[in-house]
Amino acid sequence: MRLYESTLPSGNAYKVILLLAHLGISYETTFLDILATPSETQTEAFLKLNPNGRIPILLLDDGTSLAESNAILFYLSEGTKYLPRDKLERAKVLQWLFFEQYSHEPYVAVLKFLTYWGGFEGRSESEIKRLKEKGQAALGVMERHLQDREWFVGGSESIADLCLFAYTMSAATVGF
Amino acid sequence: MRLYESTLPSGNAYKVILLLAHLGISYETTFLDILATPSETQTEAFLKLNPNGRIPILLLDDGTSLAESNAILFYLSEGTKYLPRDKLERAKVLQWLFFEQYSHEPYVAVLKFLTYWGGFEGRSESEIKRLKEKGQAALGVMERHLQDREWFVGGSESIADLCLFAYTMSAATVGF
Ligand SMILES: N[C@@H](CCC(=O)N[C@@H](CS)C(=O)NCC(=O)O)C(=O)O
Ligand SMILES: N[C@@H](CCC(=O)N[C@@H](CS)C(=O)NCC(=O)O)C(=O)O
Repeated sequence: MRLYESTLPSGNAYKVILLLAHLGISYETTFLDILATPSETQTEAFLKLNPNGRIPILLLDDGTSLAESNAILFYLSEGTKYLPRDKLERAKVLQWLFFEQYSHEPYVAVLKFLTYWGGFEGRSESEIKRLKEKGQAALGVMERHLQDREWFVGGSESIADLCLFAYTMSAATVGF
Repeated sequence: MRLYESTLPSGNAYKVILLLAHLGISYETTFLDILATPSETQTEAFLKLNPNGRIPILLLDDGTSLAESNAILFYLSEGTKYLPRDKLERAKVLQWLFFEQYSHEPYVAVLKFLTYWGGFEGRSESEIKRLKEKGQAALGVMERHLQDREWFVGGSESIADLCLFAYTMSAATVGF
């Protein structure tokens, strides 16, 4: 299998890299320059793999490409100890994966991207304030959930922990 | 089971309502006023059900509450014809569910909310322009994918179709 990721560190790709390492799966890598103009995710060849023009993409040996970091995590972890077998626990893992994509990544990852690479031009003050407030709120939800437990779901590490680690690990360095 | 949803029509709740209807599952409903100040999602009692303070929530008979519309869809559809059994097809369904939460809902649903209820005060022109562009791009990705097929994944309706229908059905009325 081949992972398409980016030359600049992407948390969404890092989640997948972390899980592949935990599972001891070997794979090949293609790096795209997402700061190029236009981004290398916008070439005709890449848009065939992901019409939504984003990394990461997992290209399977049969030629199927899978997009969305958290769908890739689910696919790779099915049948391993990183995804609970219990139906309700699996739904809880998904709850945290959707929380990450909806309430965490769009604020914490975006503030990180703007801080290091994107710059704040063209973003209004109210927008930046919202990024900070919503990101901090998401971290608060995680903090409270982990007050009396070690892992997000059940009694051991799952892809919910890996997923939320990816951008949370940089949160403090961008001011959260 | 009990569905917590809102007095104003929420697409995220509607997805779940649609699937419950398709599956013929009966349930009770609690309506919250999310336009109240503060929103009824911010009461102590509700934050116990969802520390992230959002509807929909599915409250199971054993007292477990499940948040995130798309995690609820996955939970309810497991073992039914609305979720493929094949591992790769299931991952593709999740790909579209994450696409919806990351690339579609934050633009199409947010523009709908601002148009009907929220108002555009405090949103900069560049922000509104981005909502329109990104929402339109997401609809374009869907359009191209459906050019040569009837359903998002595999040969029949799945929760990917239900999920993407919820806000796409209002897209034209808010200018997409
Ligand atoms: N929801 C997607 C988000 C992926 C995403 O936003 N990727 C960024 C890098 S972190 C990207 O490809 N940007 C390139 C571009 O926009 O050209 C996922 O979880 O995989
Ligand atoms: N990612 C969540 C989003 C849920 C969401 O944003 N719900 C809105 C209504 S559509 C809400 O509860 N807003 C109430 C509030 O913010 O107080 C999901 O898919 O369930």
